[in-house]
Amino acid sequence: MKNSKRTSRREVLRTIGAAAIGRGLLGQENARAAETPGQLGTPLGPYGERSPYEKAVRWTRQSRTPETGSSFTPLADSVGALTPSSLHYERHHSGIPTIDPAMHRLVIHGMVDRPLSLSVADIRRLPSISRIMVLECGGNSGSEWAATTGPDVQRSFGLVSCSEWTGVSLALLLKEVSVRQGASWVIAEGADACHMMRSVPLAKAMDDALIGYGQNGEALRPAQGYPLRLLLPGWEGNTNVKWLRSLKLTDQPYMARDETAKYSDLMPDGKARIFTYRMEAKSVITFPSGGQKLPGSGLYELSGLAWSGSGKIERVQITIDGGKSWINAQLQEPRLPIAFTRFRLAWRFDGREAVIASRATDETGYVQPSREELIAVRGTNSGYHFNGMKFWKVGADGTVTNVEV
Amino acid sequence: MKNSKRTSRREVLRTIGAAAIGRGLLGQENARAAETPGQLGTPLGPYGERSPYEKAVRWTRQSRTPETGSSFTPLADSVGALTPSSLHYERHHSGIPTIDPAMHRLVIHGMVDRPLSLSVADIRRLPSISRIMVLECGGNSGSEWAATTGPDVQRSFGLVSCSEWTGVSLALLLKEVSVRQGASWVIAEGADACHMMRSVPLAKAMDDALIGYGQNGEALRPAQGYPLRLLLPGWEGNTNVKWLRSLKLTDQPYMARDETAKYSDLMPDGKARIFTYRMEAKSVITFPSGGQKLPGSGLYELSGLAWSGSGKIERVQITIDGGKSWINAQLQEPRLPIAFTRFRLAWRFDGREAVIASRATDETGYVQPSREELIAVRGTNSGYHFNGMKFWKVGADGTVTNVEV
Repeated sequence: MKNSKRTSRREVLRTIGAAAIGRGLLGQENARAAETPGQLGTPLGPYGERSPYEKAVRWTRQSRTPETGSSFTPLADSVGALTPSSLHYERHHSGIPTIDPAMHRLVIHGMVDRPLSLSVADIRRLPSISRIMVLECGGNSGSEWAATTGPDVQRSFGLVSCSEWTGVSLALLLKEVSVRQGASWVIAEGADACHMMRSVPLAKAMDDALIGYGQNGEALRPAQGYPLRLLLPGWEGNTNVKWLRSLKLTDQPYMARDETAKYSDLMPDGKARIFTYRMEAKSVITFPSGGQKLPGSGLYELSGLAWSGSGKIERVQITIDGGKSWINAQLQEPRLPIAFTRFRLAWRFDGREAVIASRATDETGYVQPSREELIAVRGTNSGYHFNGMKFWKVGADGTVTNVEV
Repeated sequence: MKNSKRTSRREVLRTIGAAAIGRGLLGQENARAAETPGQLGTPLGPYGERSPYEKAVRWTRQSRTPETGSSFTPLADSVGALTPSSLHYERHHSGIPTIDPAMHRLVIHGMVDRPLSLSVADIRRLPSISRIMVLECGGNSGSEWAATTGPDVQRSFGLVSCSEWTGVSLALLLKEVSVRQGASWVIAEGADACHMMRSVPLAKAMDDALIGYGQNGEALRPAQGYPLRLLLPGWEGNTNVKWLRSLKLTDQPYMARDETAKYSDLMPDGKARIFTYRMEAKSVITFPSGGQKLPGSGLYELSGLAWSGSGKIERVQITIDGGKSWINAQLQEPRLPIAFTRFRLAWRFDGREAVIASRATDETGYVQPSREELIAVRGTNSGYHFNGMKFWKVGADGTVTNVEV
């Protein structure tokens, strides 16, 4: 409730235009409200659904094959710091396999003394860990490298979502197979048609990697890797291999398609950075954001999401004057490492054009750069790892648009 | 990973029976796993669904009218500390109304200087708060007062669920209407056909009450009160009035049906305790639990949920010998106040009958009582506010049943 202190007593509702009603009107208001429930509602059911009035869906970028592509979380409609599993972003290379968990195995082999084949039931018997954590596609905000940036928050920042994940420590399994001297990489392979593969340094696998089987209180969703997914906290989504079927210990990376031709960062000098795993601190204002329209001047809650692959969010600053001045937003507790942190600021729109943006600082002290600072270092050859600030313009009529650069 | 230290090196997977595979077998394992993805999977879509192999649903207690009743969260299938919105428990008195949020109003009136009529859009413009929080029906575990206790964890403890809720502080709204001297109660009324009403002390309304509109990252589900629900942290579910349409300030409680005939605790002497709002500390083992069968002896992760309407869970103890001895379970961090805390313990089932239970202690020092301790104080006339321990018997053949008392 700290934000409410920014506005004086009685000011809050007057400035949002809420109807203060007199004694005479109150009867009418009550009568009108009472019209709603004229009959019994729908009965109890086994599995619930959202309201038919709620229409937010993922936006899918078109591709020649519908099994290959990305679908974007509707962040403009998000509240709080979790993403409904049905709206989690997706990036698939050969569609979503339908896997019978009773038939699925995870094989751990290669440079190990005791290769193992594990069923899903085996894994679910082991000590488990839950953590609320962001997954972000390495290509999220790829639109922002271009001079014509993304028109709304879904299409420009929507390849990121936050869930509670549950799984087993990969370090535990690697101790069981007894990794041989000299092994330094783990090649993870999915059970989708393209056998998507990524090379993971052994140090990360032994640190905080999980073999995930749970998401938001239930089993992983098929689009998120059911029944098993590799989870690498803070690392680009593509390395969190879905439908995980094999972990092979080796002494060198596989140099797979998705770590050489793709998910590598082509620099201005023509050389590429590869194995750029970690997602840096980032934030975006979700309300007001591109495509929305404020119904008039007055008080609003400006709100957005911040996260970092390196830990907790320490601070989020807001500008409403295009970056000339910055004020601290309120951060929703608990701030969890590598999870969405919802930030909020009471803001009075006075009917004059405003240019707004957010800037996150994480617990390592890393500050989210501007788009220009990012391009000065990385150039514009790469479509990956954009974490620059996103500016929205609120026009005098309340229309919100992206800012052309 | 603390649990893994309880078992010696290599012991973990050997005792779950996982297949260590030799060099020769490995090829076969790989070949078999490779059979799975023979073709492209399903394409990207706007709104995701769970796997067709996942079948957990709510169990509905039959009543003469399907619009009146309870549906129970399948806790035995839960992982982590959140409940999927589609599986959140329900308790309705006249069905689930389908409300157009554009037509809905919340009226705040009675002993106030400036009555207000608020639209959902008005409320969504105000400073908001998110918190992960349990809701529990006052009648949850009503089955446990009887000598024949509930057969499984869903039917005996399933009227409790945990979500991230987002809403506006009720205290903020009450300051705006300017509550008159002498007002001490808020009468909350829902927009369902029965106009469900509860009386809430003004002190609670001014403390931590929220007008909720968000759940688990999206709008409230219809079954949870869409578009607006009163949220009273730590208080019995029934007081968290759904489809909230009216808050009336008064100098006395309404003495509504649901706080006199229902949701009151009939004591052994024939007098009833009323307005027993707070849900006390409680816990239950969800795996292994009644109706399940362990496939054999060896290592398992024993797991369950603990919560308290008074704050954080401080400790959960486990017995495997029917209450003779107790050991501390591992608690998943972060432990949030009035939220589910997942507890876990690596446990070796040696093929001998075990009688298991959990016992929670919250941050106030309150210890979950045994069923017998509870009945000694409260008798068995009341069906509400059971928070005693739940014992499961694991038979020599691995069959898990409730314990008859």
